[in-house]
Amino acid sequence: MKVRVVEDALDANNTIARANREDFDRAGVTVVNLMSAPGAGKTALLERVLADTAGVRVGVLEGDVEGSLDAERLARLHVPVVQINTGAGFGGECHLDANMVRSAIGSLALDEIDLLVIENVGNLVCPAEFRVGEDVRAMVCSVAEGDDKPLKYPLMFRACELAIVNKIDLLEHVDADLQKLLANLQSAHPGIATMLCSARTGEGIDALRAWLLGLVRARASV
Amino acid sequence: MKVRVVEDALDANNTIARANREDFDRAGVTVVNLMSAPGAGKTALLERVLADTAGVRVGVLEGDVEGSLDAERLARLHVPVVQINTGAGFGGECHLDANMVRSAIGSLALDEIDLLVIENVGNLVCPAEFRVGEDVRAMVCSVAEGDDKPLKYPLMFRACELAIVNKIDLLEHVDADLQKLLANLQSAHPGIATMLCSARTGEGIDALRAWLLGLVRARASV
Repeated sequence: MKVRVVEDALDANNTIARANREDFDRAGVTVVNLMSAPGAGKTALLERVLADTAGVRVGVLEGDVEGSLDAERLARLHVPVVQINTGAGFGGECHLDANMVRSAIGSLALDEIDLLVIENVGNLVCPAEFRVGEDVRAMVCSVAEGDDKPLKYPLMFRACELAIVNKIDLLEHVDADLQKLLANLQSAHPGIATMLCSARTGEGIDALRAWLLGLVRARASV
Repeated sequence: MKVRVVEDALDANNTIARANREDFDRAGVTVVNLMSAPGAGKTALLERVLADTAGVRVGVLEGDVEGSLDAERLARLHVPVVQINTGAGFGGECHLDANMVRSAIGSLALDEIDLLVIENVGNLVCPAEFRVGEDVRAMVCSVAEGDDKPLKYPLMFRACELAIVNKIDLLEHVDADLQKLLANLQSAHPGIATMLCSARTGEGIDALRAWLLGLVRARASV
C-alpha cells in the first residue's frame, strides 16, 4: 500500500491560513501581506496610497508587538483598522501568524471591504515564514538600510511578489547603490517586480496605488 | 516544607549563557552584544571604531541568517571574526542564542582578545530575549527608522545599557524628530545612556570607541 504523506496538513499554521483564505474568498476580499524591516516606511506609504482609493473599500490589519501608533495614523484616513498586538496576547512574537489573523477576522466587516492590507510586524526574518491566508506578499526595503539586504535576508525577498524600494529621496545622502540593490533583489528572487517610491516626495505613490487597486480589479474581472 | 522554585535553572538558554559567561570571565574577555534593526549601521560603526583600538585586542562574532558579508568587511581590519549563520545550522532563527554563541567559542582564541563584540542578527524583537553570556548590551537605532521605534519595540530598548542613535547626518533629510526620539528612548528605558553617531561623517565615533574600550579598562582595574 502506498503511504500518503500528510506533512503539510500537520502544519497548524497552514491549516489556519487556508481557513482564513476561504473566509476572504467567500467575502470577495483581496488580501496583501505587507512586510519590511522596522522603520522602512510601510505606514507612511499606506498613508499616501490609502488617501484616495478610487471607490475601492480598503481595510487594514495592523501588526505590532506593542501599542497602536500606526493603526491610529491610518484610522485618521477613515479606513477600518484592527490592531493585533503580538506582545500581550501572543507571547511577544516577532511576526504575525495565521492564528493571530484569524483571531482578528471577527472584528473585521469583511463584507464591507474589497481589499485588506495586513501590515506585518517590522522584521525581515520570521514574517516571511508564516502564511496568513493572503493572496499576495509585498515587502518594503528602504535605501537607508543599504544595498545588501536581499543577500542577508533572502527568504523575505524570495517570499514576496513585489519589492517596494522606498525612501529613494535619500539615495544621494546614503551609501547604498541603487543599481547594486536592484541587482541583489534579482539575485535573491529572479524576476521579482520592483517599484521605486518615496512617501516623502510622493514619487511612485500612484504606481503603488495602481498596483494595489489592480489586484482587486483583477479578481473582480475573473 | 518550603518548595524551592527552580524556574530559571530550567531555562536552557540562561544555563548556557552562564556557561559562556564563565568561559569569558576565565579568559578575561569583556563581551558586548550589539543589536539593531536590519540596516541600522552596526557593521559600518564597527568598521570605523575598530580601525584603531589603541592596543585593546578585539574579536568579533558575526550573526546573520545567511552569508558572511559583514564578517568579510570586518576581517579586512585584521580583526579575528567568526561567522554564525542561523539559517543553515540553526533552522533560520531570527536571533542569536546562547547555544549558537557557545558553538562558536571553540573557534575563538579567547586568550588572545580582550573585547568580544557580538554583532547580532538585524531584528528589534527576539534578540533582546536571549542572553548569550554578554557583559553589556547595546543597540543601534538609525534616525531613518523614525522616532517611534522605542514605543513599538520597547523590550529591545529596555534590554540595552546604551542606545546609539546612528545616521544623524540624515536628520535634515528625514521626518524623525531627534528630541522626540530621545524622549521616546527615555520613556521606554528611563536613564538609558545615549550617543549620537554617524559612521558616514565620523561624528560620535571617538565617543563610541572610548565607551567600548572603557568597558575593558573598567574590568582590568577591578
